[in-house]
Amino acid sequence: MQIAVLGTGGVGRALAGRFAALGHDVIMGTRSPEATLERDDHREWAAANPSVALAGYADAAAGAEIVVNATSGDVSLDVLGAAGAANLDGKVLMDLSNPLDFSAGFPPTLFVKDTDSLGERIQAAFPSARVVKTLHTMNNSVMVDPGAVGGGDHTVFVAGDDADAKGVVTGLLTAMGHTDVLDLGDISASRGTEMMMPIWLRLMSALGTAEFNFKIVRN
Amino acid sequence: MQIAVLGTGGVGRALAGRFAALGHDVIMGTRSPEATLERDDHREWAAANPSVALAGYADAAAGAEIVVNATSGDVSLDVLGAAGAANLDGKVLMDLSNPLDFSAGFPPTLFVKDTDSLGERIQAAFPSARVVKTLHTMNNSVMVDPGAVGGGDHTVFVAGDDADAKGVVTGLLTAMGHTDVLDLGDISASRGTEMMMPIWLRLMSALGTAEFNFKIVRN
Repeated sequence: MQIAVLGTGGVGRALAGRFAALGHDVIMGTRSPEATLERDDHREWAAANPSVALAGYADAAAGAEIVVNATSGDVSLDVLGAAGAANLDGKVLMDLSNPLDFSAGFPPTLFVKDTDSLGERIQAAFPSARVVKTLHTMNNSVMVDPGAVGGGDHTVFVAGDDADAKGVVTGLLTAMGHTDVLDLGDISASRGTEMMMPIWLRLMSALGTAEFNFKIVRN
Repeated sequence: MQIAVLGTGGVGRALAGRFAALGHDVIMGTRSPEATLERDDHREWAAANPSVALAGYADAAAGAEIVVNATSGDVSLDVLGAAGAANLDGKVLMDLSNPLDFSAGFPPTLFVKDTDSLGERIQAAFPSARVVKTLHTMNNSVMVDPGAVGGGDHTVFVAGDDADAKGVVTGLLTAMGHTDVLDLGDISASRGTEMMMPIWLRLMSALGTAEFNFKIVRN
């Protein structure tokens, strides 16, 4: 499939590289391809992932069947606006953002929560996109290589209003090695999953590693 | 040990009954023992748990070594005030409350979150009590019989400022069958665990049962 990954940080790289390795046609979206190419760390990453193209947000999204929002929560709506509503129309939009506010330092707080969520705001801002909130409750290393933690015996959530879109995302998650894809229902479930960030951050401190994940144990 | 369980709802009953079955000396605290005894459901429960005494909040807490807050979050500070700061002085205070606000219906919102927590408010209001936040991230049936879900292979959190108090609570949890007691650090970790309520509620809807729990999977 044609997949556009918006964002060139750790999450964007992890997913772009993994999707490319799985045989998808991957393009990475960034604000300024020229500026991104000037970064030594990006050039190194790109050299190791030569099949992944790089373009501006709109150009990246234009030709994609699936768009992945792998940007920081505080810029996600701006980035998606730059990608352009027309380029998101009818497409599966995998949203991995967390509404973290680092303005008062660490630990961050959440700039939207409880009665609303970033997933819902994105769906509301781009009503013809088919938003699926997923993967944002784990570290990027675990997103793309679930087997590296506990043999992969843990849970990834999907939430969104479009059942077909969740099916497409579930297929991508399964291909990456996820074995327990748990459908939480409509996009308002993002309230619950985004509010897991404080416990996730606390666990990272307590365990001394980001290499963990939640499993929902049931009979 | 002498354990006072404040609250006669589902959580209070589950814990009082289980602690009594484990051989502890258990007294249940309620606002008005007379009113509680007039309730048919309580009389039935008490008949099945004859070793559990019933008293007002202050009388229950006065003789206890461990006090368990098993009341609704919206009344917890009032109930603990009625129990009396002097009766909590130096004691282990197991806090199981969740700051749920049902005033706008279901799902509830949280009346404290993100930059503060009910666990912290309780510790601040009763500074000489040794508050340990625990067990509130699972259904009361799972609290007292963890083996009934996934063979008990899941996680219970403890958080609090007093290491000895966490040790006492860990002993009680282990005696009930919990095998993975994860220490999150000081009481401010309550922000993270209390903010798990929205995902817990969503999971209950998605799974159609409250018989589940979180496991923190790590290597």
